Amino acid sequence: MNVGIIGGGQLGRMLVMEGRKLGFNFSVIDSNANSPAGRISDSSYSYDQYRDFIGQSEVITFEFEHIDSRVLEAAESSGKLFPGKNSIMLKRDRADEKNFLKGIGVPTAEFMVAETRKELSEAVKSFDHSVLKSAAGGYDGKGQYRLKRNDKLDGIPDQKYVVEQKIDFDYEASAIFVSDRNGKVVMFTPSYNLNRKGILLLNRAPISDPGFRDIGERIIRSLGYVGAMGIEFFVVDGKPMVNEIAPRVHNTGHHTLLGSTMSQFEAHLRAITGLPINEPELLSPSGIVNLIGKDLDSTTRSEILSIPGTVIYWYCKDSARRGRKLGHVNIASHDEASLKKRMDLVTRAYYGDDPDKYL
Amino acid sequence: MNVGIIGGGQLGRMLVMEGRKLGFNFSVIDSNANSPAGRISDSSYSYDQYRDFIGQSEVITFEFEHIDSRVLEAAESSGKLFPGKNSIMLKRDRADEKNFLKGIGVPTAEFMVAETRKELSEAVKSFDHSVLKSAAGGYDGKGQYRLKRNDKLDGIPDQKYVVEQKIDFDYEASAIFVSDRNGKVVMFTPSYNLNRKGILLLNRAPISDPGFRDIGERIIRSLGYVGAMGIEFFVVDGKPMVNEIAPRVHNTGHHTLLGSTMSQFEAHLRAITGLPINEPELLSPSGIVNLIGKDLDSTTRSEILSIPGTVIYWYCKDSARRGRKLGHVNIASHDEASLKKRMDLVTRAYYGDDPDKYL
Repeated sequence: MNVGIIGGGQLGRMLVMEGRKLGFNFSVIDSNANSPAGRISDSSYSYDQYRDFIGQSEVITFEFEHIDSRVLEAAESSGKLFPGKNSIMLKRDRADEKNFLKGIGVPTAEFMVAETRKELSEAVKSFDHSVLKSAAGGYDGKGQYRLKRNDKLDGIPDQKYVVEQKIDFDYEASAIFVSDRNGKVVMFTPSYNLNRKGILLLNRAPISDPGFRDIGERIIRSLGYVGAMGIEFFVVDGKPMVNEIAPRVHNTGHHTLLGSTMSQFEAHLRAITGLPINEPELLSPSGIVNLIGKDLDSTTRSEILSIPGTVIYWYCKDSARRGRKLGHVNIASHDEASLKKRMDLVTRAYYGDDPDKYL
Repeated sequence: MNVGIIGGGQLGRMLVMEGRKLGFNFSVIDSNANSPAGRISDSSYSYDQYRDFIGQSEVITFEFEHIDSRVLEAAESSGKLFPGKNSIMLKRDRADEKNFLKGIGVPTAEFMVAETRKELSEAVKSFDHSVLKSAAGGYDGKGQYRLKRNDKLDGIPDQKYVVEQKIDFDYEASAIFVSDRNGKVVMFTPSYNLNRKGILLLNRAPISDPGFRDIGERIIRSLGYVGAMGIEFFVVDGKPMVNEIAPRVHNTGHHTLLGSTMSQFEAHLRAITGLPINEPELLSPSGIVNLIGKDLDSTTRSEILSIPGTVIYWYCKDSARRGRKLGHVNIASHDEASLKKRMDLVTRAYYGDDPDKYL
């Protein structure tokens, strides 16, 4: 089976790594010829070569949503693209994503769409505290601004926004859903997220499900979705609300690489290639610490690997820079208390006292 | 880190797969340019190119013992070879292996070395039941003959043998030991082996340790060994006896790919590259079923993947033939009873009623 991956980042890299188990071959298309995924794939293509890439692939998937339109159209037309274009289009405009969720009755933060400066000004006045999110997307907290009702808009760039009521959540959580080609939907054990400056720092499973499954299944079925989808939730007064959806494998699903019967990457590949998926089982408490913003020197690497239950994934990116995800550490343990302790040790080994310096 | 692997089979392939986590690069040397490991490595070498292969590699290891002498000598001289030549030399002559074990006080089956036809005849008469094993080695039961005291030697090829007293064991077991460069030795949870016709069919952990650890540590320390070593045991009246040692990752350690905090492949790579290792933790009962002797058609593949807790490793060998290991299935579950049931389902899905047809 030849699988084509659009995008050569770490998510693509882990798809390649996990797909080797089933003996799959991989083509990667990326502007960087030496991308994290491209360097371990069977063949690499530049975006100019997209026709060859599509011709070569039996099934095509992607590891990020902001796909070159030519490539997206051609991949969709080929009938090989999973998940389909409709899920990507939702991520082209955050207003579409929010309206879609609202339309199918999924709880989200209250929001207003502001196309003009005047609408933006009115929207900000509608909430005590609001979060302005660039409609064009952005990741890891980029393009987001927090304002109070009477704040001025000075310094806020002129663009289309979704203005959301700021949510005082109990905690942030995620669940990875996977749907096969026959419409069977499974959910990985939900996990707890700790974000700092809009970037995921830690993630840990299990947590209980206050209603994630119903919401995820509704979203998946509404889209006729095939593959893995990451859904980020706020839990407010014990009830889930969707923050956002990602039509792909997701950073909050990396814990499934250790201590689960199957990883999100394998589940995604099985689903898009027409193979069966099962309800994944969490064999032990499992978590990750993201490695963000600085290289991993050999002393730190040894310090992390000396902590029991740790496995390092290093993404082999070209260079380190503040806020850039360069790797992660999987951590597992028989019980949650010891998992948390190990995760603390890993966090301290890499970041010292202050992760914020690197985020 | 550039790691060179001598041999391009499935063990090499899994070393490459697991080493991608740490961001390692791999060179593989093999007579087949399209070997299971070579096709997913960064560079492939033929044996004629061994000087380039050695020059290119920062650390060199191997996935089988019968290494071309030129390559072995040059690798050892380079100072990059782990484990060292001494452990390989033990596997060049089974008599040396047995004498080494006896010399350090490790219990084994009683044995006699027979270099001539006359010695062979006498050795066979010394035991009620004996197993003749070609001194030159062999794997998966090749080069072995079972005789009774008064059996004739007709049809037994003329070569050097180790003649062992046949052991009526309670069960066969294995444990994978790993020693780092500082001499720290860890043991993976021991596992139960089911062999058929001298080939491993099933393997399952955990089993308790009736004394494997002491024996393994003695062997490792006697050799000044660095890396992973598989040790096969017979358990007789509750006491362990060594059947044989393998100075490398081992088929009976594949269960560590699922449900352990670390795989044997990663542990080996950490050890030989000077990284720390910890005592591995088994997070759940875990086992494998070897896929031997026939291709995996798509119906069977789907049938296996429909069984919960299964992950297929398919090795991508050139061709299937009777007795050839072509892949394996990892299976995990929360409890042993359900693990055994899942393993039975996998065995039946692939082999039907009769594995022997394919072994």
